[in-house]
Amino acid sequence: VKVMLGVDIGGTKVAVGAVTREGEIRGKVMTAWTDISGPEGFVRSVVEVLREAEADLDGDILGIGLGCAGTVDWDRGAIIESPNLPIAQEPLRGLVVQALGLPTVLDNDANVAAFAEARVGAARGARHVIMLTLGTGVGGGIVLDGRIFRGASGSAGELGHTIVMGGQDPCMCGRRGCLEAYASGTALERYARQITDGGPPGPSGVALETAEGSLGRNDSEEADYGRALRELREQGRLDGEAVGLLALEGDSAAREAVAEVSRWLGMGLANFANIFNPEVLVVGGGLSTLGELLLAPARDLMRQMAIKPNGELARVEVAMLGNQAGVVGAGLLAWQELGPGV
Amino acid sequence: VKVMLGVDIGGTKVAVGAVTREGEIRGKVMTAWTDISGPEGFVRSVVEVLREAEADLDGDILGIGLGCAGTVDWDRGAIIESPNLPIAQEPLRGLVVQALGLPTVLDNDANVAAFAEARVGAARGARHVIMLTLGTGVGGGIVLDGRIFRGASGSAGELGHTIVMGGQDPCMCGRRGCLEAYASGTALERYARQITDGGPPGPSGVALETAEGSLGRNDSEEADYGRALRELREQGRLDGEAVGLLALEGDSAAREAVAEVSRWLGMGLANFANIFNPEVLVVGGGLSTLGELLLAPARDLMRQMAIKPNGELARVEVAMLGNQAGVVGAGLLAWQELGPGV
Repeated sequence: VKVMLGVDIGGTKVAVGAVTREGEIRGKVMTAWTDISGPEGFVRSVVEVLREAEADLDGDILGIGLGCAGTVDWDRGAIIESPNLPIAQEPLRGLVVQALGLPTVLDNDANVAAFAEARVGAARGARHVIMLTLGTGVGGGIVLDGRIFRGASGSAGELGHTIVMGGQDPCMCGRRGCLEAYASGTALERYARQITDGGPPGPSGVALETAEGSLGRNDSEEADYGRALRELREQGRLDGEAVGLLALEGDSAAREAVAEVSRWLGMGLANFANIFNPEVLVVGGGLSTLGELLLAPARDLMRQMAIKPNGELARVEVAMLGNQAGVVGAGLLAWQELGPGV
Repeated sequence: VKVMLGVDIGGTKVAVGAVTREGEIRGKVMTAWTDISGPEGFVRSVVEVLREAEADLDGDILGIGLGCAGTVDWDRGAIIESPNLPIAQEPLRGLVVQALGLPTVLDNDANVAAFAEARVGAARGARHVIMLTLGTGVGGGIVLDGRIFRGASGSAGELGHTIVMGGQDPCMCGRRGCLEAYASGTALERYARQITDGGPPGPSGVALETAEGSLGRNDSEEADYGRALRELREQGRLDGEAVGLLALEGDSAAREAVAEVSRWLGMGLANFANIFNPEVLVVGGGLSTLGELLLAPARDLMRQMAIKPNGELARVEVAMLGNQAGVVGAGLLAWQELGPGV
């Protein structure tokens, strides 16, 4: 059977799977820790797991698709900048070609995840798909007419760094007011902290009485309100994941923090509905495990805030492929880009 | 000579010109007032000027391109909703085909203006072009790979109604925090009013001390500061155009109001640079007559706020085609969509 190797290169691990033309993974997905001590070690750790996967497989490997965190220069096959990986400006694609002797493509991890969801996941069959990946940060992927849209130099789709609250709260990117500062796991943790400080969750420095009707804020009059969050905080265990788990268990203060993420997610989705008029908006990443608790209010707000035809048309779906999206998407991208010749 | 009729249907006037395959206007552009008393009168007024243009021309008219204000349903050839025209849900394209017997396409006016600038205007030669039209409101047009991007049902590109200040100032669309509420002629007037009220221009209800370093705000200590704006206001003549003229004459308070528009324009441009990674961002519409007074600070802020490769790559240009963009773009669109068969 003919396959492409789909490779998901994250901040701590690299995962490799053999992907068929139909987007199925054959055999098992191999994973290894990435060596982030420096560029050489990093490339070596990626190449090693690729060689292992190659040795392990009885199929014909026609090529390799790499999905990697960071800003991609498509023409050079390089990561221009990456928050976590020591790979900036290295010709990663070329180094893999050199080591493995197989045709290789390199794209951003959020792009390939969006491509996987559009081809075989939550947005299967749709022409225009926008995906937001909500984790520590907010990643974005754009699929238009069934293809990843990359822009002039390969770095389109930085959807998490669109400004939704100009000049306001600082973002991890060093700027202010980005969607990522309001609709990420990091934001969820901040909202929970605001609640434990006795305030409402939300943007700082903003007169909230001028804001839209809030989603699910309550009067916080229960004696127990916020107690579980305060306990987490005292134990030094207050982070986005812990807040999400509490919210799933029904804790009302944690739910209020999640509702604030939903509100900003809804605005972000409305923006992308207005800009792209897509059939499907997919929400993935760690926060998407909150499911409809996060998505239902965001979907409602998206429909209110988007212009009518766009809001009515766009479906908002939870990502289906979970942590396999990277491997499947990278493999499918290799099929799309390298397939016709092989 | 073979031509397409390019038709620019605005809120008050319709303009028709004969457009060559190269995007040149042959002969003169005919204009007429649109009858906005109702759908029938409206269509009649459009058809009449089309008939006049047809009679007046000695070239071969191969087809018609209509650019019309409002949200377009591309497949139906209809305007779904329009702020000013009594044409919602009417099958405008079909009615024109019926009356003139010529193949016809219908698109949004901001889309065709962007197409004109991308093909023969300020962004000539670029593959990916985003255009913002700053007038009373903010229109948007998206050209990707040399073609207008319309999304799933024809209403992509509502760039003026992307949220840049979630939950804050009301927009004409009834929602809050849209780019249009901060970077339009209407916003310019509001900023001038805020200055005459003795305050700084900007979003209401927001603690500005948390904002980015402001652009060109001064200490407002000159005795004369704001006097010209106050006089305009007393005379009931304070609007975006008057503030713009004062700013061009050097009035420092008017310039402060313009600087606030620049600031939000810069953030909007940064968002579209991050999303699309385009070669060119074009700024047109009435406010673009302010030229570099508006654009220079917006360009600087765009470069600061966009991710590095996208901010460095994107050129920010003033629209070149002025009020001919609609006619030229509608004609060129007819060539692109209808041309191969004629």
